[in-house]
Amino acid sequence: MSLDETTEKPHEALSRHLADGMQAVDKLIRERMVSDSAPRIADLTAHLIGAGGKRLRPLMTLAAADLCGYEGPYAVHLAATVEFIHTATLLHDDVVDESEQRRGRPTANLLWDNKSSILVGDYLFARSFQLMVETGRLRVLDILANASATISEGEVLQLTAAKDLRTNEEVYLKIVRGKTAALFSAATQVGGVIADAPEEHEQALFDYGDALGIAFQIVDDLLDYGGNSAATGKNVGDDFRERKLTLPVIKAVAAADEEERAFWKRTIEKGDQQDGDLEEALRLLAKHGAMEATRQDALAWADKAKTALMVLPDRPVRQMLINLADYVVERVR
Amino acid sequence: MSLDETTEKPHEALSRHLADGMQAVDKLIRERMVSDSAPRIADLTAHLIGAGGKRLRPLMTLAAADLCGYEGPYAVHLAATVEFIHTATLLHDDVVDESEQRRGRPTANLLWDNKSSILVGDYLFARSFQLMVETGRLRVLDILANASATISEGEVLQLTAAKDLRTNEEVYLKIVRGKTAALFSAATQVGGVIADAPEEHEQALFDYGDALGIAFQIVDDLLDYGGNSAATGKNVGDDFRERKLTLPVIKAVAAADEEERAFWKRTIEKGDQQDGDLEEALRLLAKHGAMEATRQDALAWADKAKTALMVLPDRPVRQMLINLADYVVERVR
Repeated sequence: MSLDETTEKPHEALSRHLADGMQAVDKLIRERMVSDSAPRIADLTAHLIGAGGKRLRPLMTLAAADLCGYEGPYAVHLAATVEFIHTATLLHDDVVDESEQRRGRPTANLLWDNKSSILVGDYLFARSFQLMVETGRLRVLDILANASATISEGEVLQLTAAKDLRTNEEVYLKIVRGKTAALFSAATQVGGVIADAPEEHEQALFDYGDALGIAFQIVDDLLDYGGNSAATGKNVGDDFRERKLTLPVIKAVAAADEEERAFWKRTIEKGDQQDGDLEEALRLLAKHGAMEATRQDALAWADKAKTALMVLPDRPVRQMLINLADYVVERVR
Repeated sequence: MSLDETTEKPHEALSRHLADGMQAVDKLIRERMVSDSAPRIADLTAHLIGAGGKRLRPLMTLAAADLCGYEGPYAVHLAATVEFIHTATLLHDDVVDESEQRRGRPTANLLWDNKSSILVGDYLFARSFQLMVETGRLRVLDILANASATISEGEVLQLTAAKDLRTNEEVYLKIVRGKTAALFSAATQVGGVIADAPEEHEQALFDYGDALGIAFQIVDDLLDYGGNSAATGKNVGDDFRERKLTLPVIKAVAAADEEERAFWKRTIEKGDQQDGDLEEALRLLAKHGAMEATRQDALAWADKAKTALMVLPDRPVRQMLINLADYVVERVR
């Protein structure tokens, strides 16, 4: 093996393996993201889609379809569909979160305005449904309409659960499914649907995407309290300062005595944070084994993702998807 | 005829004629507008849908289906669908326009926040596609995905065309289709689709909704410069003060000499308005016959709407739809 091959990341291996499909996805996205009547739409989408990103979700759809032996043209439509839905949610999220940076560049809401971001998000959402219609499969529309509803439910739930100490692990999972896992699981599932995969395979693909998305989010939560900023692009304690109820904190709050509860109430619910509070939070997370328990959860979800794939054919893509699940939790293993 | 019957408005007559269906639509909307996982969604949708409004768009769908002899259950799903899409666009519009009042009540973005309005709009949009999937008709999804794309394109176009004197009648029509006519025409067309109406009838229903929506918007533009505030709920000149390029102004700008162009440039493009400017604008509109030409356009669109219906069966609903087209332009006849 050459050095290049040994250092290739699993999503890079997938991209290379599915290069033809991904190129077709890119072409379709560029064709459909413009609008003849409203040039600003093209400006905004070019900014966002030109910024790149890993195109992980379309890759998941192509991989799932490939794994189920699909050779027709419509996996490309579905891959473009999930990227459009993803881009639409990013545009709306950046308005909701008042974000100023995305993928190292100024956000669309900053460069243009909130209005354009809202309306172009709506436009991409409509375009995504047009692409699905072209596949002629109602079941695909069913799955992605459900996923879209779950995404917005999760985001609304996140708004109301923010800074609320009553947020438990069940609510957390719903939020994470909305934020991340629902689109991953739909992306993999529709790959199976378009390939006419048997029910059992379709379910396995859904389970893989769901578990992968959840593992991904939990690792993100964990690194915020224990990673280094070079690896994550964030500073340790960002979530604490933003008063987010992430999984480590939820576990520590559940185990808290009265005094500790008062600490969380002051720092997270009331937002009255002082010097030394982050250190105290880290001490409480350690005391209750919240970091370790969260880490175990991430590993368990990654295992669940890998196990789900076992019913599927042993094609090269399967191993790449298994490697991807390992890669997601590698930084906390 | 009793006094009640003579004073009944056409949409009231339609509501009464289709009362059973409209009740079923109301029930379905109330069932589907909630979310088990995110209670705030129910709060927002109840506020907006509780505020009522005429439910004109679902009425159009039921009327079209009835006119084509449909007796199955799915016209109700499609009627709820168009109301959900309409409500989603209202939620997003109120954020885009920073509105504070809707149907005489505070807007959702004012009562809750912009974030909730954006996300609940997304939720309703996803829900609308779920309802369409239940009808099992891909063609319905095609039509309403296209309409949704046209709506957001029209709104983005309106953002960029605002205050721009180069806006011509062609651009104006695109904006109006996005704002109003695209959902009307889709609402009537899908009523025909669900009834398996012949191609010619489906097209006629589209044309009716399209022309009705355009007539409606032109009348609105006209009354802003010539109506009375009791009839419109707006004050004369609101559009002028907000520097909107509506049809009367577009016509006056097209006919303007150099001095007049300078006036429009100053008042609309630059927004430098002084006492007496509204009076001068009204004088220029009169001088070039822009009001009368706009009025003739509205009447022509209403006629087009009525003419389109002539190929459809002569059922009671047809006369009600004809009366509705007359009613829309009655205030400027």
